[in-house]
Amino acid sequence: MRIDYSAAASLLREQAHITILTHGNPDGDTLGCAYALAYALHADGKRVQVLCPDAIPACYDSLRRDLPQDSFTPGFVVAVDVADPKLLGSLAQSFVGRIDLCIDHHGTNTGYAANLLLDADAAAAAEVLYFLLEAYGSAITPPIANCLYVGIATDTGCFCYASTTAQSHRIAATLMDFGAQAATINRIFFETKKESYFALQRLALDGLHIYDNGQVAIMPLLQSMYAESGASSAESDRLSAIPRQIEGVLVGATMKEQPDGYFKISVRTHAPADASAICAALGGGGHIRAAGCRIEGPLERAREELLGAIRLQLKAL
Amino acid sequence: MRIDYSAAASLLREQAHITILTHGNPDGDTLGCAYALAYALHADGKRVQVLCPDAIPACYDSLRRDLPQDSFTPGFVVAVDVADPKLLGSLAQSFVGRIDLCIDHHGTNTGYAANLLLDADAAAAAEVLYFLLEAYGSAITPPIANCLYVGIATDTGCFCYASTTAQSHRIAATLMDFGAQAATINRIFFETKKESYFALQRLALDGLHIYDNGQVAIMPLLQSMYAESGASSAESDRLSAIPRQIEGVLVGATMKEQPDGYFKISVRTHAPADASAICAALGGGGHIRAAGCRIEGPLERAREELLGAIRLQLKAL
Repeated sequence: MRIDYSAAASLLREQAHITILTHGNPDGDTLGCAYALAYALHADGKRVQVLCPDAIPACYDSLRRDLPQDSFTPGFVVAVDVADPKLLGSLAQSFVGRIDLCIDHHGTNTGYAANLLLDADAAAAAEVLYFLLEAYGSAITPPIANCLYVGIATDTGCFCYASTTAQSHRIAATLMDFGAQAATINRIFFETKKESYFALQRLALDGLHIYDNGQVAIMPLLQSMYAESGASSAESDRLSAIPRQIEGVLVGATMKEQPDGYFKISVRTHAPADASAICAALGGGGHIRAAGCRIEGPLERAREELLGAIRLQLKAL
Repeated sequence: MRIDYSAAASLLREQAHITILTHGNPDGDTLGCAYALAYALHADGKRVQVLCPDAIPACYDSLRRDLPQDSFTPGFVVAVDVADPKLLGSLAQSFVGRIDLCIDHHGTNTGYAANLLLDADAAAAAEVLYFLLEAYGSAITPPIANCLYVGIATDTGCFCYASTTAQSHRIAATLMDFGAQAATINRIFFETKKESYFALQRLALDGLHIYDNGQVAIMPLLQSMYAESGASSAESDRLSAIPRQIEGVLVGATMKEQPDGYFKISVRTHAPADASAICAALGGGGHIRAAGCRIEGPLERAREELLGAIRLQLKAL
């Protein structure tokens, strides 16, 4: 059931114990939302736990430094920035079918939660959460401001992607007024790279290929490249933007080889190409400009399968 | 003489013919300001000309598409985003000593103009101009909104640099409300690179060296690299951010070899290092986080001179 900000705030007010779930391979938006909501509910005397199916990268440590993690048997469960229960990974088994509230900004949300607070025009779930906290009457403390800023900044590529709206900028301004340390956060998330990152980028660029008169660019990221560069697979997330950045490219994709032999595909598009349609055809999902899916290896057949789905989408335009 | 917004607006209202000067090697802020001011003054019935000492890159063409360029003998002269008359390049001879108004955001402004409208806390001269147009009573039309957005977005690295303030975000939001095509502009200025850019980046990364326990990174960009990659020297501007992005680096510099054998130096710092102090010691100037200067080649001696100035600054911390 779709609910509004006021109803979502009321639902949360009624609870004493709240479990917050993030999606797997967690990013700044799902973690920023989870921590911001946890801070706000704690401040209102609730007991709160945040559960994430995967390891949390160290760059998020400072966001949860002052956050108590309570221990209790989950009752009321909230999922943040989780469009599909499949994205809950190892948490899916325990929680699918018993999620009380989902706070999201994905138009592709499957409606799996009992209550859904969704604004598909928001550039980040953190924008939705900002208005929910306003409806709840939460004070925006500096830790909350930092968490929400991380959510918006990371999901918009620092206010660069086409999803960025005037509302994204206005909320960012307010969060900075409330103490968000934007310069420090931007430095960590956008302006700091390891030397190994640049080494990985060089190897990746060697393997980048252009197809279909320059409209499609595909860049494989292989396990051997991590070994040679000394970079971690987490560092490769930042490379996903590169294929789409090449002049003339409508669909840019990275293919990240996983230890299990599958490829994690990240697709980015320029208008009018639809990344969400391409990935949906391959069993994944996401947004119109950025989406993801998994394809079984080896590389050559995975690339053919991906190219096939991309060409179907380009033909449909 | 420092003047306020109201006095600057009055000065402009009194004129019938206005000549606007940009700095050399023009960027989005100086051109965005020049064109925005020209649109606003035209709309008020003034005759306006914009003069730039250097060729204007094609990416700015769309900003001035609807801008009439009047021809007349300069009388009242305005400089935008020009901190020092030396930056006027080939226009300096005709205009130094006769600039009536300067609109700027550089704390290092030399005060060369008869009247100076300066806000050193503004992230871009376009923020200063935004408030000046408000004081003037100008309507923010879509072309003006686009020009001012380009100024703010390019001078803040798309709202990423430490200079970005809540005010930068608020003005951006208002400009988007007034029709600034932020997504299109961001795509052109931040999300589109030629294949040759990536080729140049690879060559440049090969020549990058780290000094002083990882605190200093210097990356030469040589004429031979442009030849080998097929990239233009304009494309190399975007590489200036890379040395500072390496984890642990406080001072990152690029050294762009010029056809005349000089090196154009771009220095970027993280706190507490002061790029402006480093470049001032070498006869240049700029901001605390980003500054520039010129050093005579060959490469080895230019690099030693640059390293010397950087080390003096790091010792002074």
